[in-house]
Amino acid sequence: MRLLEERIRREALVVSPDVLRVDMFLNHLIDAAFLDELGAEFARVFADEIGRITKILTVEASGIAIACAAARHFDVPVLFAKKGFGNKTLDKDVYCSSVFSFTKETVSTVSVARRFLCPGERVLVIDDFLANGAAARGLLNIIEQADAELAGVGIVIEKGFQPGGMELRAQGVRVESLAVIESMGDGRVTFADSEALAAPQAASI
Amino acid sequence: MRLLEERIRREALVVSPDVLRVDMFLNHLIDAAFLDELGAEFARVFADEIGRITKILTVEASGIAIACAAARHFDVPVLFAKKGFGNKTLDKDVYCSSVFSFTKETVSTVSVARRFLCPGERVLVIDDFLANGAAARGLLNIIEQADAELAGVGIVIEKGFQPGGMELRAQGVRVESLAVIESMGDGRVTFADSEALAAPQAASI
Repeated sequence: MRLLEERIRREALVVSPDVLRVDMFLNHLIDAAFLDELGAEFARVFADEIGRITKILTVEASGIAIACAAARHFDVPVLFAKKGFGNKTLDKDVYCSSVFSFTKETVSTVSVARRFLCPGERVLVIDDFLANGAAARGLLNIIEQADAELAGVGIVIEKGFQPGGMELRAQGVRVESLAVIESMGDGRVTFADSEALAAPQAASI
Repeated sequence: MRLLEERIRREALVVSPDVLRVDMFLNHLIDAAFLDELGAEFARVFADEIGRITKILTVEASGIAIACAAARHFDVPVLFAKKGFGNKTLDKDVYCSSVFSFTKETVSTVSVARRFLCPGERVLVIDDFLANGAAARGLLNIIEQADAELAGVGIVIEKGFQPGGMELRAQGVRVESLAVIESMGDGRVTFADSEALAAPQAASI
């Protein structure tokens, strides 16, 4: 998606060859109007799933905003997997899965209340990033436990040089990413399906 | 807000005299269309702040969806405070505050990158719940550290029988809650500004 690639090129910070910071519009400061455009793009990409999917599934915290932006176009509710346990307001009857966080270098448990994901539902997974695919696999595992059906995985930014997307596609999962980054060497972002080379501002930290 | 009170009455679960579960539309499964209506209501309540506030501030995870829904009506970005440390994609130059979580019974640190909250900004705080006011006070403390200005605090559900709202108002903070619960004794929800008594389904857990 050209608009997203331009935004990444203009504002994103390459922190290291495998870490990109987009906290200025996607996952800390949120440009809600821009996320609406990304949500509309998901609806175009998965147009054949409008009226078919029953739910959008994501994981807290940074998936919530983009999942909600997409949900408005599919007219379905968002279900977000919660991290950890011990919350008094959470259902105890849950589907759980373990997820290794690439950015935090920790293993966490994500869970979804069983009553909110039923057998036969058709689910679209939406998330902000796809790198090693750990979060996506955790969500897919939960969908499987629920005997629900996976429509596909919609990602804002895929790091194409990390194996998550390739592995999921090899398993037959439909993965649609609005921007696929081929490499971030030398602080430069190269997108997979574009000859354009982007040179975002080098990170100063 | 009548529509919200009706929804709480119809669907919410009173888990104990001080714990209400609204995970079927607000903070686990998210009814995105309904949240849009809540967002529009915040814009009506804070109509005098449209064009004045520069940012909406909330805290992950359950504040994000409602903050984004509100942001669309104010045409400002959302900034969400992150919990914990150690994320490679997060700025290290942050404002921090400690927050005691009533539902998790833990103390956590919330932080906001300094470069996203500047002196002189006018900030509206939005969150899903107000009970003891710990999360709100944490955010207010961050706004103060940034030398930014607080426009007010917008809450979806205030537990009026817990002291957060009263204490904030006593400090001169403008707090606007879309529903204020006066009591939840006997599994019944009584709203503060309504003679209606609601009897949501008793929790079976």
